[in-house]
Amino acid sequence: MSGIPIQLDYSMCMESHVGAIGGISELHLEGEIPTFKAALCRLKSGIEKGEIGFWNLPESLETLRDVQEYAASVPESVTDVIVLGIGGSSLGMRAIAHALGGPPELRLRQQGDRAVYVADNSDPWFLSRLLETLIPQNTLVVTISKSGSTVETVAQWLVVRRWLETALGRRAREHQVFVTDPERGVLQEFAVAESIPFFAIPPNVGGRFSVLSAVGLLPSILCNFDAKGMMQGAKELADACRTEELSQNPAGMLAALHVLHQRLRGHNQHVLMPYADALRPFGDWWVQLWAESLGKRLDRRGRWIECGPTPISAIGATDQHAQGQLFMEGPRNKLITFIEISSAEKDFTLPKTAGPLSYLSGTSLTEILKAELQGSAVALANDGRPSLTLRVARLDARHLGALFFIFEAATAIAGEMMGIDPFNQPGVEAGKRLTAGLLGRPGYEEEGQTARRAMDGDQRHYAL
Amino acid sequence: MSGIPIQLDYSMCMESHVGAIGGISELHLEGEIPTFKAALCRLKSGIEKGEIGFWNLPESLETLRDVQEYAASVPESVTDVIVLGIGGSSLGMRAIAHALGGPPELRLRQQGDRAVYVADNSDPWFLSRLLETLIPQNTLVVTISKSGSTVETVAQWLVVRRWLETALGRRAREHQVFVTDPERGVLQEFAVAESIPFFAIPPNVGGRFSVLSAVGLLPSILCNFDAKGMMQGAKELADACRTEELSQNPAGMLAALHVLHQRLRGHNQHVLMPYADALRPFGDWWVQLWAESLGKRLDRRGRWIECGPTPISAIGATDQHAQGQLFMEGPRNKLITFIEISSAEKDFTLPKTAGPLSYLSGTSLTEILKAELQGSAVALANDGRPSLTLRVARLDARHLGALFFIFEAATAIAGEMMGIDPFNQPGVEAGKRLTAGLLGRPGYEEEGQTARRAMDGDQRHYAL
Repeated sequence: MSGIPIQLDYSMCMESHVGAIGGISELHLEGEIPTFKAALCRLKSGIEKGEIGFWNLPESLETLRDVQEYAASVPESVTDVIVLGIGGSSLGMRAIAHALGGPPELRLRQQGDRAVYVADNSDPWFLSRLLETLIPQNTLVVTISKSGSTVETVAQWLVVRRWLETALGRRAREHQVFVTDPERGVLQEFAVAESIPFFAIPPNVGGRFSVLSAVGLLPSILCNFDAKGMMQGAKELADACRTEELSQNPAGMLAALHVLHQRLRGHNQHVLMPYADALRPFGDWWVQLWAESLGKRLDRRGRWIECGPTPISAIGATDQHAQGQLFMEGPRNKLITFIEISSAEKDFTLPKTAGPLSYLSGTSLTEILKAELQGSAVALANDGRPSLTLRVARLDARHLGALFFIFEAATAIAGEMMGIDPFNQPGVEAGKRLTAGLLGRPGYEEEGQTARRAMDGDQRHYAL
Repeated sequence: MSGIPIQLDYSMCMESHVGAIGGISELHLEGEIPTFKAALCRLKSGIEKGEIGFWNLPESLETLRDVQEYAASVPESVTDVIVLGIGGSSLGMRAIAHALGGPPELRLRQQGDRAVYVADNSDPWFLSRLLETLIPQNTLVVTISKSGSTVETVAQWLVVRRWLETALGRRAREHQVFVTDPERGVLQEFAVAESIPFFAIPPNVGGRFSVLSAVGLLPSILCNFDAKGMMQGAKELADACRTEELSQNPAGMLAALHVLHQRLRGHNQHVLMPYADALRPFGDWWVQLWAESLGKRLDRRGRWIECGPTPISAIGATDQHAQGQLFMEGPRNKLITFIEISSAEKDFTLPKTAGPLSYLSGTSLTEILKAELQGSAVALANDGRPSLTLRVARLDARHLGALFFIFEAATAIAGEMMGIDPFNQPGVEAGKRLTAGLLGRPGYEEEGQTARRAMDGDQRHYAL
């Protein structure tokens, strides 16, 4: 499909290339068309009814404008941005900052732009170093929580707010902005009570689908990443993925191939392996998207199915030297999606060398990387092990936006094809309630007792 | 076991706590004793014969002294260290630098010590930024490759060598040191020809088991990390893990629990989930160790078994918001190993707050983190899903060394218990040969043709 910023090559997961044990056939794909159409139809209906919001984010440029306007009002004295958020509120921004801003340890020295730090855990390890390093006067704190009461995030926020107030007194609120539910939650209440500006996460956009809402746009624009380019690339994919022609729908094909490989070939471990260091945190973002959307106890009809492929993040060529042995010789339960970036912004050509390395003279590092990907794909295929390759011309904002969208759409379509709800996450509640009980949150006394009993109860304890 | 720097709590993977579907029993453990003893015996015999080298690294302090001597000769003008290496030659050092040196983006601002940069991929993305940032005069380049001819590493080295020579001419060699096989390989030849100092990786120590050899020690000491403390912690574990009493052997228990859960309960996905941001790259190190050692086509007798658990790296509490849903509701094929760090170097106590967050007043971030781990473990257990917890008092060099060793020993023991060779990696060769063919390496012409035929052959190509 010319014009689309992502090309999907799926030869190496087909019977014709990897045999019938590891591959599927064109007949399988054809047979899946009704399921795909029903899934897409269901999604489109959800989008039209306003229940599903992520699909239209790339074309609703209103948030982008609001965020740009706010960012323009942030004084130049603000040189550092802290993002507090976890899961869907942090992984997207970390992926953007890495892919477009460079590796964290080299980012600061290279750019005059604002630095962004994503603090996503209740572990004090990162936050303590961060607050020792930054200067409150020069820092803007973006606190992101869809529910507005995520314990890790509000706990971090209480710490950072004190840090700001100690230094700035009442002006502390000028160094804060929230991204949260527009109508409910603790952050929203504080925003109103303390006159802190806030941006809405649309209620119909789940955390893991929110990177193209204010969640990703606000920090991006504050740090001068090309948010508009991301939205454009995402929109190109959103348009392309609307077609009901499976063979013309990139996200539909990506979803159908994974669903079929899982159902027919037992490939329930899905590896995403970009040959690009710049996409390492993108892999973490995808892991949440895939795991949380497709790992479900119940199907849409309430049947107990406990399904869910395991997403595995890998980086080529590095992981050839880490997970490659398992991928090549271990159980035949994996489908690998490679991502190939065709050209690098900066590249090196190897110098002319005598002796055993002379065969590398004049080769570029990017050519080596590409040969590694091809060598891996062919070695797997020769042993009947399947892979897909997504090809991207270069890693700029447009292509990053396109990658975000193709995986979001593929996830939603795959979930609908599997007959589950890809948009909920009921399983994380139980642990949250027990934790709240252990922390003494009012209303959770019983859970606290349950947890304590389980930890040190009268059952025999096994330890060494 | 008092005195050992790591405590293993395995209650929550036992039948008594999670039921018979998800848990195993004391009888199972007892029944496994002969297999464990045979495995340990085989390992010990390999160690005595000098075939297996990693176990004795913590007590052979000779390398440590040699490295210290060399490091003392490196001038103070060297402020930056580049490590070139991939897989077992990079993941260990990255784990050390992160755990003991702090997050990369905040490391530089906090320490007067030398900065370390690990460049492990043939992707020019990181290297190009690195060479633009550093100054050759102030940089020492440590190139690490066991075989001495790893294509990613020698390619990077050719680029970096040119960078040094352009700036320093013949003095470039003073800014280089190798860690490689003492007798063979391209790096060894260049070391001799160009009078570049080099340290040996003992031939009986595989890459993924080499972190406590010069591979990890040299960059650690150059950057003033407490290598001696690591060795001490590792030695404590090495001593503890020699006992043939399974119930007293921490690595033996860790191995036996995983092997039994895999064999009896189908738990073939092994999650390592430290509640510690500092251990994120440690997880990557462990993924290679576990995947490459235990993922094997053939068993010791040459039978075709295609075995291997899938290692999954996660970080608590962050991944509760990413993979937690899948772990809680997805297929019952996972065994999770939590790591709890009891105390933090620096912590925050939350300020007194009115309103809905008042229950957090006076709680520390570390207490929240611990409650999150406990809430997750109990929520899983209440649903019959098993977990283990490793407890570590604090994250210093000693405990990091102990963590390295317990997982190395557990991996070796688990491999022997499974009847496979945990020390080889035959599966990565096929891809390497195809890549060499594509790059035109002499002697690999046939592989090059095979790869090209497979990529664009006469078989129908599927792409969109």
